[in-house]
Amino acid sequence: MTRINENYRKLRAGYLFPEIARRVREFGAANPDAEIIRLGIGDVTLPLAPAIVEALCAAAEEMGRGTGVHGYGPENGYGFLIDAIREHDYTARGIEIAANEVFVSDGSKQDSANIQEIFGTASKIAVTDPAYPVYVDTNVMAGRTGNAKPDGGYEGILYLPATEANGFMPLPPEQRVDLVYLCSPNNPTGAVASRANLTAWVDWARRNDSILIFDAAYDAFIQDDGLPHSIYEINGARECAIEMRSYSKRAGFTGVRCAYTVVPRPLAGTSEAGERVCLADLWSRRQATKFNSVPYPVQRAAAAVHSPEGRKQTAEQVAYYMRNAALLREGLQAAGFAVFGGEHAPYIWMKTPGGSSSWDCFSDLLSKAHVVVTPGSGFGAAGEGYVRISAFNSRENIEEAVARIRRNFSV
Amino acid sequence: MTRINENYRKLRAGYLFPEIARRVREFGAANPDAEIIRLGIGDVTLPLAPAIVEALCAAAEEMGRGTGVHGYGPENGYGFLIDAIREHDYTARGIEIAANEVFVSDGSKQDSANIQEIFGTASKIAVTDPAYPVYVDTNVMAGRTGNAKPDGGYEGILYLPATEANGFMPLPPEQRVDLVYLCSPNNPTGAVASRANLTAWVDWARRNDSILIFDAAYDAFIQDDGLPHSIYEINGARECAIEMRSYSKRAGFTGVRCAYTVVPRPLAGTSEAGERVCLADLWSRRQATKFNSVPYPVQRAAAAVHSPEGRKQTAEQVAYYMRNAALLREGLQAAGFAVFGGEHAPYIWMKTPGGSSSWDCFSDLLSKAHVVVTPGSGFGAAGEGYVRISAFNSRENIEEAVARIRRNFSV
Repeated sequence: MTRINENYRKLRAGYLFPEIARRVREFGAANPDAEIIRLGIGDVTLPLAPAIVEALCAAAEEMGRGTGVHGYGPENGYGFLIDAIREHDYTARGIEIAANEVFVSDGSKQDSANIQEIFGTASKIAVTDPAYPVYVDTNVMAGRTGNAKPDGGYEGILYLPATEANGFMPLPPEQRVDLVYLCSPNNPTGAVASRANLTAWVDWARRNDSILIFDAAYDAFIQDDGLPHSIYEINGARECAIEMRSYSKRAGFTGVRCAYTVVPRPLAGTSEAGERVCLADLWSRRQATKFNSVPYPVQRAAAAVHSPEGRKQTAEQVAYYMRNAALLREGLQAAGFAVFGGEHAPYIWMKTPGGSSSWDCFSDLLSKAHVVVTPGSGFGAAGEGYVRISAFNSRENIEEAVARIRRNFSV
Repeated sequence: MTRINENYRKLRAGYLFPEIARRVREFGAANPDAEIIRLGIGDVTLPLAPAIVEALCAAAEEMGRGTGVHGYGPENGYGFLIDAIREHDYTARGIEIAANEVFVSDGSKQDSANIQEIFGTASKIAVTDPAYPVYVDTNVMAGRTGNAKPDGGYEGILYLPATEANGFMPLPPEQRVDLVYLCSPNNPTGAVASRANLTAWVDWARRNDSILIFDAAYDAFIQDDGLPHSIYEINGARECAIEMRSYSKRAGFTGVRCAYTVVPRPLAGTSEAGERVCLADLWSRRQATKFNSVPYPVQRAAAAVHSPEGRKQTAEQVAYYMRNAALLREGLQAAGFAVFGGEHAPYIWMKTPGGSSSWDCFSDLLSKAHVVVTPGSGFGAAGEGYVRISAFNSRENIEEAVARIRRNFSV
């Protein structure tokens, strides 16, 4: 009689994306002739850029030579990658990040899932609603919540609704919480945080001695250079914010796996005894014990993203997806749909026509237009009445999807 | 005032291997002329086998073509790899494992670190002592232990001493516990479990409704085909055991990162309400939420380990390391040292000369012979008075290390 982690029993159904995959598989099996266009999961569709392929291959061949053996890598990433990150993602925008503040990992999903482990179980969590399900689910698993509520949320979590009224970028709450998950450019709404919004959050966090977990996995999609790419562009963020970045979307790494998290050294939590404890040290201990670094060829490939050729090639890919986003936005808007996002993010946040539910709209789009989207309610109660449409696909499929939706739905 | 995970405060100093690395760095800085031979951390030293390099490159190039895009992979691994695992690691030894019982991951360290998350916090843990530190440290972090004891262990964990008397392979305890971590071939002692030993464990686990976590990361080093490679060679193990295997040591993947865990469908834990809950479902939910699969090129590389060329090439590497192990064992034995292991494992477990402590012996070997080993006490209290010597190095270095140790130490 070995007891399971009872918190898992609180989780609703499956994790969102496997659930969508299951429904699409079923539809496909029942309708073998349907040409399904997948704008659900946000997965890249362009081939890896040549500079990245070259770096992967060169590293593999290096490892095959006696002089190029690379076994266990440095715990938190090779110096060549950490230095490239510091230079191109931070120094280039006037931010100084030390080498021992960068923790290379195999994905922002993992980092945003694991970061809660270094905090106390009684920590009070806030998320914007809707949000990437991993933020909430991992806190449920860790026992920081009560049971699921009828609206799909969990007791004990503070949900901050992202609404049309606040431009899908909530401001800080009145009450104090310990940890807040923020994401900009936002998944799923495609909204982007202004400097003023992030300044309000940083000021609030410093006043409340709270920690912000800032997920910037989509920063490369920001089109307006005046918008903050990093929360560390805001004064005081080094004292209150952890930041996560990923190569997945910016460089097509969803099947290659590389990301990183920045934990500034000044950032501290508090022990029971009231001591201030450096969070970078805790995260380092967590990673040293439960992780074992990223494949050497993958780290070389990530470094190649920062090379002159890599920057050029991946920028072209981002531009391609952003042109898709514009086509989706404009096409659906012209047809009378209410759409948001897609200007600094590869996601369109579409109001369901006729006020139908998110899952009904999902099913309608699948059965009538053979287009897969993601039900907004899968990201939280405040996502009800919306669907997320991903711009990651071929130009042809995007155009065809817009045409089919316009043909099959009248608003 | 955001509270940290207070359990981290119970952990002693750094994780073992970074701590060794730090001491070696310091010694190297103070003695720049010393030619240090590293037999501490068990990291491979031979280049990647050609079949693996070829597979990595071919997959990278495939991903660079429009027809070969691979984004997010199937949650638990590609079918081509899971099928190769089932065929070569199981069917070949008369064991049937279903595809949905195999969970591909980026390392056995991660899997053995994360598996505890699906069990209740009150679960009672047993480990053989000494053991791979990850088993204990991750349970400390999760709050399943009390404070550290003077001997380096933790209150609340049942330690099963692996001693010369029991051939470094403890038998099951009298009392019931929920989870037991077993490792064969063993890290650090190099001992190997007999069929009788594993049968005793499986019978005990079934009688007690306990779960065995069987770490078989070193199975490829078993030289006697009559010894069990998998715990599923024992009748009834599908009802009580989780098994972990890795490509790290068998195929030089420490810098490539691939492993897998088998969770048989019949395996169940118990909920508070007394229901039986399928552990494979819980682990699947954990992985779907907190992990994001292994790079496509890495999975192709792992599959290449099972190809005819891959099998031949990696078997030659294993034979090379095992010849090293024999040289270490025989050389040190001839010089009067008491050594164990190294016959079915790439590790030698050496009694410290003159009854000195493990860390004193570590320091002595470093300062006099410039040889890095791992202090046995770093693996648990019962490891005190031993050091682990790794066979992962060049033939030349192994011979030189034996010569230096023999020159500088008289037993």
